[in-house]
Amino acid sequence: MQPIRLGLVGYGKIAQDQHVPAIRANPAFELVAVATQGQPCAGVENLQSLGELLENGPHVDAIAFCTPPQGRFGLVRQALAAGKHVLVEKPPCATLGEAMALVDLAREQGASGLYAWHSRYAPGIEAARDWLASRTLQSVRIDWKEDVRKWHPGQAWIWQPGGLGVFDPGINALSIATHLLPLALFVESAELRVPDNCQSPIAASIKMADARQLDIRAEFDFDHGHDELWSIEIRCAEGVLRLDNGGALLSIDGVRQAVSEEGEYAAVYRHFQQLIKDKASDMDLQPLRLVADSFFVGSRTLVEPFYD
Amino acid sequence: MQPIRLGLVGYGKIAQDQHVPAIRANPAFELVAVATQGQPCAGVENLQSLGELLENGPHVDAIAFCTPPQGRFGLVRQALAAGKHVLVEKPPCATLGEAMALVDLAREQGASGLYAWHSRYAPGIEAARDWLASRTLQSVRIDWKEDVRKWHPGQAWIWQPGGLGVFDPGINALSIATHLLPLALFVESAELRVPDNCQSPIAASIKMADARQLDIRAEFDFDHGHDELWSIEIRCAEGVLRLDNGGALLSIDGVRQAVSEEGEYAAVYRHFQQLIKDKASDMDLQPLRLVADSFFVGSRTLVEPFYD
Repeated sequence: MQPIRLGLVGYGKIAQDQHVPAIRANPAFELVAVATQGQPCAGVENLQSLGELLENGPHVDAIAFCTPPQGRFGLVRQALAAGKHVLVEKPPCATLGEAMALVDLAREQGASGLYAWHSRYAPGIEAARDWLASRTLQSVRIDWKEDVRKWHPGQAWIWQPGGLGVFDPGINALSIATHLLPLALFVESAELRVPDNCQSPIAASIKMADARQLDIRAEFDFDHGHDELWSIEIRCAEGVLRLDNGGALLSIDGVRQAVSEEGEYAAVYRHFQQLIKDKASDMDLQPLRLVADSFFVGSRTLVEPFYD
Repeated sequence: MQPIRLGLVGYGKIAQDQHVPAIRANPAFELVAVATQGQPCAGVENLQSLGELLENGPHVDAIAFCTPPQGRFGLVRQALAAGKHVLVEKPPCATLGEAMALVDLAREQGASGLYAWHSRYAPGIEAARDWLASRTLQSVRIDWKEDVRKWHPGQAWIWQPGGLGVFDPGINALSIATHLLPLALFVESAELRVPDNCQSPIAASIKMADARQLDIRAEFDFDHGHDELWSIEIRCAEGVLRLDNGGALLSIDGVRQAVSEEGEYAAVYRHFQQLIKDKASDMDLQPLRLVADSFFVGSRTLVEPFYD
């Protein structure tokens, strides 16, 4: 079988660290072009923009989008209109409306789309899903607490309107929880704590439920310098499942379980390959919808100003 | 043809003033039961709850929901699960996630659903759509400015988390604009002005666009005591269309046009009747999605406290 000829748009840190190594390690893909205005990518044709790539670049079957979510909507639309399959980094778009419209457009075009919620491919997730499938769920508790100064030093965009604040890491937790749980989740209430010199929350408490009234609570904290944790604990009638380190570690009733050894982005691209083969899409809106609804119905409390 | 046997849930002001008169004026419907915990509705069976209506009430084919949007999701889900058609007052649900889930459920159940954006049935709207259909759009300007003390005296819920603030009337303008314009709208930016003793905005400026980059701006003001206005002005290459009084009046280049004489809710129920006949649904998410995205990406400015 011929490899899928892939273009990539936005050759920044996540593309360099994760996407390009995962693509090059997967013989089903051939990276043939990169559109970037910064540092060029070695060994492929580099172009100034998506428009130039589509017009003057080598033929591609699919395009991976690693530019920031602001402005990505028009680019992905352009690629879909040109008949390309698309892989879109998280969060897919600046607004839920944009993300919803791309789902419709991919369907209309018969293209394969993937909203790449990469945390869903963390090592412990598949084993967790398998274990949960036959269990009786009782409650879910998410703790996602890290030090923004360490992970996003000087990144003012996080705090601006449309920046996700603590939901930037938090959306990863929501992407895992929605992948693990059998029914859709709904925001019942949210408390957003916003530094009084910022627009986006530095901490949040979210209460969610599904149609069976499963109690799901999330605590997000972005100003947590000591003992960072990224954990999801699911209490079932049969025992307690716990994911730690963002899904890298899995334990059941305190006993460490065997997990996958495949990297997150290796699994992302393997999934994309399968979607293209199956002429299918996986453009799940749910994590972004939970964030938008948290902003929509959440109460806001001003807290002390944030200085980087 | 047998009339559609209708139940109504939530016999408050909007039900008494609008729904019940419109239902009784339409021979295609027969109002047979009302679920309410307040004042009973004369001439029909009154029950304490939707559950009691479904279990012990007379048979109904369809149910109209006039309870507040908070808590409505579970009720509408219950009605759909029981195989009923549903008409849902605006805004349909407390969150976008809930509203999206009901669309899927209605489809799965093969039921007819109507999210009743009543302002879309204002007298001037159909004539405006007809005129716009063949015109070249240039820009859209929405002004929705009223005195909250006059229209919602003492209604604290408007200012609480999940209350829409000025988007409570503003969503009517958005429901009209999305009905008039041919392409989907997306929020580009929003400024929300929030009284410092409230959670919801008292005024908002929203910049939207469609896929052709049509410039759409809305100004919502809830603290506008003099010269209230509810207008939408659409500039086209061929002239300027203007709706006033929430869509009751239509003018083209300043010349008043003939409009429909049918009341909003008469048209709502005529539409619902047609949907049931056609086994179709009209559950448009777009107005609520634009509100949720405005809260999601909007910047907030604190303004002086609001006292009723």
